[in-house]
Amino acid sequence: MTSVTDPYELKQRLHAAATRSIELGLNALLITPGADLRYLTGYAAPDLERLTCLVVPALGKGDPYLVVPELEADQAQASPLGRLDIQSVSYGETADPYAEIGRRIGAASGIGLANRMWAEKVLAFRAVFPKAELSLSDAILGQLRIVKSQAEIEALTQAGRAIDRVHARVPELLRAGRSEREVARDIAEAILDTGHESVDFVIVGSGPNGASPHHGYNDRILEPGDQIVVDIGGTMPDGYCSDCTRTYSLGEPSEEFNRLYRVLYEAQEAARVAVEQAVPFEQIDAAARDVISAAGYGEQFLHRTGHGIGLETHEPPYVVEGNKELVRIGNTFSIEPGIYFSGRFGARIEDIVVATAEGAESLNNQPRELVIV
Amino acid sequence: MTSVTDPYELKQRLHAAATRSIELGLNALLITPGADLRYLTGYAAPDLERLTCLVVPALGKGDPYLVVPELEADQAQASPLGRLDIQSVSYGETADPYAEIGRRIGAASGIGLANRMWAEKVLAFRAVFPKAELSLSDAILGQLRIVKSQAEIEALTQAGRAIDRVHARVPELLRAGRSEREVARDIAEAILDTGHESVDFVIVGSGPNGASPHHGYNDRILEPGDQIVVDIGGTMPDGYCSDCTRTYSLGEPSEEFNRLYRVLYEAQEAARVAVEQAVPFEQIDAAARDVISAAGYGEQFLHRTGHGIGLETHEPPYVVEGNKELVRIGNTFSIEPGIYFSGRFGARIEDIVVATAEGAESLNNQPRELVIV
Repeated sequence: MTSVTDPYELKQRLHAAATRSIELGLNALLITPGADLRYLTGYAAPDLERLTCLVVPALGKGDPYLVVPELEADQAQASPLGRLDIQSVSYGETADPYAEIGRRIGAASGIGLANRMWAEKVLAFRAVFPKAELSLSDAILGQLRIVKSQAEIEALTQAGRAIDRVHARVPELLRAGRSEREVARDIAEAILDTGHESVDFVIVGSGPNGASPHHGYNDRILEPGDQIVVDIGGTMPDGYCSDCTRTYSLGEPSEEFNRLYRVLYEAQEAARVAVEQAVPFEQIDAAARDVISAAGYGEQFLHRTGHGIGLETHEPPYVVEGNKELVRIGNTFSIEPGIYFSGRFGARIEDIVVATAEGAESLNNQPRELVIV
Repeated sequence: MTSVTDPYELKQRLHAAATRSIELGLNALLITPGADLRYLTGYAAPDLERLTCLVVPALGKGDPYLVVPELEADQAQASPLGRLDIQSVSYGETADPYAEIGRRIGAASGIGLANRMWAEKVLAFRAVFPKAELSLSDAILGQLRIVKSQAEIEALTQAGRAIDRVHARVPELLRAGRSEREVARDIAEAILDTGHESVDFVIVGSGPNGASPHHGYNDRILEPGDQIVVDIGGTMPDGYCSDCTRTYSLGEPSEEFNRLYRVLYEAQEAARVAVEQAVPFEQIDAAARDVISAAGYGEQFLHRTGHGIGLETHEPPYVVEGNKELVRIGNTFSIEPGIYFSGRFGARIEDIVVATAEGAESLNNQPRELVIV
């Protein structure tokens, strides 16, 4: 198994990005810290106010180089980027790295920017390339990153197993009388204990808080009879992310909740079964939504069915109405329908799946049934 | 003591932002998730691909409103923003929130954007406001955020005490034979244990890794005789950040290192003493740099002396050559000179200080001497 930062694969990616850039009429692609930079070079750069920027000239316009603050030059070279023969252009505290890139690229008609570049950097490049049309890196990197390599699928498999181990511990953390915050603190520790390098998010949505899909946690005290949505994720040392949701119940739930949960369970399964090569993503969304709507909960399923995952927790492809892109082998994404009654309770089941020739393979495998604690 | 999210203070900030916007000829300020949004409303919104945007029309052009994904509408209202009479404009998964904002603002000649808005959102607004000049929020928010209120200084004081408690525990974690990664893992836990809500960064730069100022940590094993730069920070539940560096030594250091460290110690003190109302920030940088240069280490001090801190770890004011801004009472910033010998070792001492009428008051108070473990 090659690593996710195998130099040969990274060079292939850089070459593909340069090739696609010339096809799209760009002079260069400007990649600031984030998933695109890590994908192309293996460098997990700090995303700070000083400019770090990988410049990928379009094919035939020169070799890629990294503009980097002097104080970060060593760590860039110590990363997998250091094995790629990428020239390092370091600068001191009073230099203008934007002007330096402007001089090196010259007059430009098309510049691609990392999707998550900060506005302050976008406007600084805007001033340096006043005549260039600015576009986004996802037109180039998005098409590469959306299909995962074997090494990336293995990395996401490991991330999935790690977060499964956290969910396996969650029942012992959920006790009436504890606050969401206390539970979240223990979960954060478990996320690190299971091999993640960082905690990306911890949602402990108990009782009515479960109806707010991106709730996080607060000081609400868990009560007997609560249902609790636990949606958690972290980043592994290699940069790949986990994301998994299970719903728990402190004691037996009401008949109403049981009925709702059974519908949700069937909807999540229907969406997993709908995953097939060359099926449009909106069809997977519809598979879950049809089950939920038929049961009368359509209004309560207020988000899309899923999102891609890789070096970012949320990335293309999105499993949403209107997305007519077709599933490709190697796509990795979440399937996470939910049903929410504002002010009362919520429920969600989420797995990360990889699309294979045989359909969806789930990278999360804790039981999907309601866990009664 | 009022809280950092006192509704009256938040409304004052919103009013000041609207007033300054009209003075600068803007139609509106568009604030996506991040420190600016939290500063204006108390809402710590998730920064994701769906648009969340506080629209602050310039004075006389209407009231502020929050455009928010339907699935996050409840949590926005549950935050301090919910006490501000800010209209919530929520949208579903297939709506276009950019077009909605475009319709509401109408033809615009000037639009201010949050400094850290993602490029993909910048270009989406660019398309919606084709004739508007785009500028950055720091022209407005920067001038407000740079002077901290009493409540903010109290919050930073608590953050400083919390990270001091972590440094107090660091000596017991540093043992020959442990890896930087193991130490970093324990420090991350201590950052959470001491009251932070999240770990922002952990630098454990041992031996030659100490010479790379933003190193992070890796699998290097600590050895007897190592000097170790430990630079750590987190965010407290109220959003305010800590950041503090101390340098440790596993056993007695060499005479060369001792000499260097004494110079560094004096430089850091000189910079703290140089803090005074109406002194230009570059003069504080020079105070540290002069000491280090006079001792012959000028080339080895390869970064500025400090950065502002508040709701972001790095924010204005920057303590750097060329910054002629004058110190104001209520500014909070780091003083962190360092000396680095690439491939050998490094040392840094960092405190967060607040500028008072009596000069710098340090919010970090662990001993600054080299800690011999």
